Amino acid sequence: MLKSIYKPAQIWYFCFNYVCLMKKKPLILISNDDGIDAPGIRFLINQMLEIGDVVVVAPNSPQSGQGHAISVNTFLEFKPHNNFDGEHLEYSCSGTPADCIKLGVHEILDRKPDLCVSGINHGGNSSISVIYSGTMSAALEAGIEGIPSIGFSIQDFSWATDFSICAPFVKSIAQKVLDEGLPEGVVLNVNFPKSQDKPYNGVKICKQARGNWVNKFDKRTNPHGKVYYWMNGKYVNMDSSENTDEAALEDYYVSVVPTQFDLTAYQAMNALNKWDI
Amino acid sequence: MLKSIYKPAQIWYFCFNYVCLMKKKPLILISNDDGIDAPGIRFLINQMLEIGDVVVVAPNSPQSGQGHAISVNTFLEFKPHNNFDGEHLEYSCSGTPADCIKLGVHEILDRKPDLCVSGINHGGNSSISVIYSGTMSAALEAGIEGIPSIGFSIQDFSWATDFSICAPFVKSIAQKVLDEGLPEGVVLNVNFPKSQDKPYNGVKICKQARGNWVNKFDKRTNPHGKVYYWMNGKYVNMDSSENTDEAALEDYYVSVVPTQFDLTAYQAMNALNKWDI
Repeated sequence: MLKSIYKPAQIWYFCFNYVCLMKKKPLILISNDDGIDAPGIRFLINQMLEIGDVVVVAPNSPQSGQGHAISVNTFLEFKPHNNFDGEHLEYSCSGTPADCIKLGVHEILDRKPDLCVSGINHGGNSSISVIYSGTMSAALEAGIEGIPSIGFSIQDFSWATDFSICAPFVKSIAQKVLDEGLPEGVVLNVNFPKSQDKPYNGVKICKQARGNWVNKFDKRTNPHGKVYYWMNGKYVNMDSSENTDEAALEDYYVSVVPTQFDLTAYQAMNALNKWDI
Repeated sequence: MLKSIYKPAQIWYFCFNYVCLMKKKPLILISNDDGIDAPGIRFLINQMLEIGDVVVVAPNSPQSGQGHAISVNTFLEFKPHNNFDGEHLEYSCSGTPADCIKLGVHEILDRKPDLCVSGINHGGNSSISVIYSGTMSAALEAGIEGIPSIGFSIQDFSWATDFSICAPFVKSIAQKVLDEGLPEGVVLNVNFPKSQDKPYNGVKICKQARGNWVNKFDKRTNPHGKVYYWMNGKYVNMDSSENTDEAALEDYYVSVVPTQFDLTAYQAMNALNKWDI
């Protein structure tokens, strides 16, 4: 059955699939935007290995702020990464987080994953940051593919972050989504507050806070006399409601925002229908 | 008042602002994702010059499929473009469409525009394409900044597209938004069907059709023996409702979808609140 035309990686993949089916463990696709070697995704992989069979397709370099970018004007490369050792499969990809999911679903895997998780992102993705986030774009892309999906982020940029405080929540939320599924068209945006060396106060289901990044542009001159700018910015919260993700995180809760990719503002349709255009 | 420290461009900008204020014409910020020299944005600029004062900040190269990417890991450059001739101001920028709006609002302009328009994109941005679209990310970014904003796209990739069929709709929708404003948090996603050499049947206010791009990856080998992939895909409509953008476009109507950047799936919150996590 396994002809010589098959490369070792392909043979291994057949075996991997066969074992997965025999074990009947859920198949979990993992990606992120900080790159395949980031501590956040390494932690997430280890957590997911406790509840399912794991395939990783993640960017080979940091892709923060990539929003929902996809590679339409350039080609993609991917290759086996690191520990192609029988524990799980990993591929690093030259593209964006959304590309990784598309590659994973349409090229690498031959069955639909039972769950997709993205992250854990080094840096929060609450409020309007959801729209710029590569982590959430991977999760949303999986959601568009009909895969129950979760993006995880922590409000801590440090590469030395101790993620262990997140562990019980990551596993219980992932297991819950595996057990119950998610409403159609809904993806979870989970954010963890920066650790204060004490357990989180719990989980809150929230709405995305109304807020904005007020940007400053740091003007510099390169050694050749050419002017260039670095974008900088400060988040400004404009939402005093109680049930926002920002409020939950401020109160040291894990925030969970059900997030959708149908962007229609249904509440505005009546008003627009009265326009004479 | 105009000291010698001011460069000619700055002096001109002061004069531009002074004239705008005197004329009391609306200030219109224009961007796109096909690049500043694309025929679609040139047409849009000419239309907007009939109803307001125009400042253009657009990418210096094509940025299709950039989604809501922003430049957090690289610097930005921008410079006056083309006809810095007194008719209107234009800047080309090294960044993404969302970068262009951030630069325009926070660095280039010293007052908030009355309107932002993006496009006209060479290619449709209906249904789920809204989420990958650089054109719509510019419009959404302006919406996040609190600027009434519209993205325009046509279902025709040809650089030779005759946009004149769009003219009355572009102007009347832009004028309506200037006159009436838009509900808070709402941006318009306007799509034109490919011209059939007859006038459009009218305008329909629509919802974003439920659909997906089913991707294929075209595997190739470069001259050095390395494998790479081109992403390709086909849109699959999964929505048979009557009031979708896809249905309107199919019926040769201009589709207008009120589009929001609050991604909260409010309808899912009750169900999630019952979860024990």
